[in-house]
Amino acid sequence: MDYKIVELKQSILDDNTKDAEKLREMLRQEKTFLLNLMSSPGAGKTTVLCRTIENLKDEMKIGVMEADIDSDVDAATITAAGARAVQLHTGGMCHLDADMTRQGLHALGSKDLDLVVLENVGNLVCPAEFDTGSVKNAMVLSVPEGDDKPVKYPLMFTVCDVVLVNKCDTLPVFGDFSKDAVVSRVRQLNPKAKIFFISAKTGEGMEEWYDYLRSEAAAWTGE
Amino acid sequence: MDYKIVELKQSILDDNTKDAEKLREMLRQEKTFLLNLMSSPGAGKTTVLCRTIENLKDEMKIGVMEADIDSDVDAATITAAGARAVQLHTGGMCHLDADMTRQGLHALGSKDLDLVVLENVGNLVCPAEFDTGSVKNAMVLSVPEGDDKPVKYPLMFTVCDVVLVNKCDTLPVFGDFSKDAVVSRVRQLNPKAKIFFISAKTGEGMEEWYDYLRSEAAAWTGE
Repeated sequence: MDYKIVELKQSILDDNTKDAEKLREMLRQEKTFLLNLMSSPGAGKTTVLCRTIENLKDEMKIGVMEADIDSDVDAATITAAGARAVQLHTGGMCHLDADMTRQGLHALGSKDLDLVVLENVGNLVCPAEFDTGSVKNAMVLSVPEGDDKPVKYPLMFTVCDVVLVNKCDTLPVFGDFSKDAVVSRVRQLNPKAKIFFISAKTGEGMEEWYDYLRSEAAAWTGE
Repeated sequence: MDYKIVELKQSILDDNTKDAEKLREMLRQEKTFLLNLMSSPGAGKTTVLCRTIENLKDEMKIGVMEADIDSDVDAATITAAGARAVQLHTGGMCHLDADMTRQGLHALGSKDLDLVVLENVGNLVCPAEFDTGSVKNAMVLSVPEGDDKPVKYPLMFTVCDVVLVNKCDTLPVFGDFSKDAVVSRVRQLNPKAKIFFISAKTGEGMEEWYDYLRSEAAAWTGE
């Protein structure tokens, strides 16, 4: 097994927002760009991540923290894709906060990494409520879930800097999914959000996403 | 607008399990069968429900409580399908407990209803942790989410009496989804769970589900 498993402890800090700021400050000094990646169960976070690692691993040192209630399915997949990984077990908790993220970074060893991705618990509700200390928040919305998700889970779409609309290769099968509807519903909540239409399976639209990561990571580390 | 909107209050009761038993006792006296329907966002709960209502509304009086963080999308759809509906706003809360369910039943007026469905918040984590007072728990797992969900969200699959594997019409598109893998993973957690492979869109496999509801409702009401 090429990855650690970390049983997360519940945070005892009262002020998560303040703690998240502290964590970001540490990451800036370390020159590590932390991305918090969220989605519903099964939207394709891990597939997006594997393809991203394969395409960027020659340019950046990448680490991944796989948060999951209990299983280790994803850390094994990520390790095979070529990134350093830790599996975080939340022990039933439905979200991560800054202190839990710090426990993960510590286990991962983030100092020498350029990009760390926190793959959050698959959930459109709770993870959106906690600042993890990440530099940017991204979410994956998959076509089969439907174009009404921004209306039903507004906070998630409000806190995300990027929305990756995944499984676009299945658009012909899910004929009632409207790209325009997604764009206008996201824009209404979050005018500045970047929206990329992708298929992590076919690679469609992924170049724009890689460019986004490259430029945001460079801006953060000042390089 | 043909449905009420209820802003749920957080429960003040300590012992939800005891409260859920009390609620079930009330439902037994009322001869009302309460089904708690859970899933990830976008798995197709509302579509399953609409088709179920259309097929059973001549045999049973049906009511639906649509729990949602904020929106009213689903209550309008359900009302159009021909059931009495209330929209429950959880105000950001990621689950429902027995007292919140009671608030919903009160607003719906459940006394004259044979079947009430609580469409829970789209989330595979938190709703599984709370007994809502329902007679049976069912969940919808959609094919595009993947066959590994029982491994990643074990509690949900443990507490459910029924797993409806939905969007089976898209199996040719999601070629890596294995029905056998789902069955064996669910069975490992929950040997007694009923598993139905359905497509709420095409109607495939739905008759078995209707038969299950008919017989469970009859057993509950003693009719």
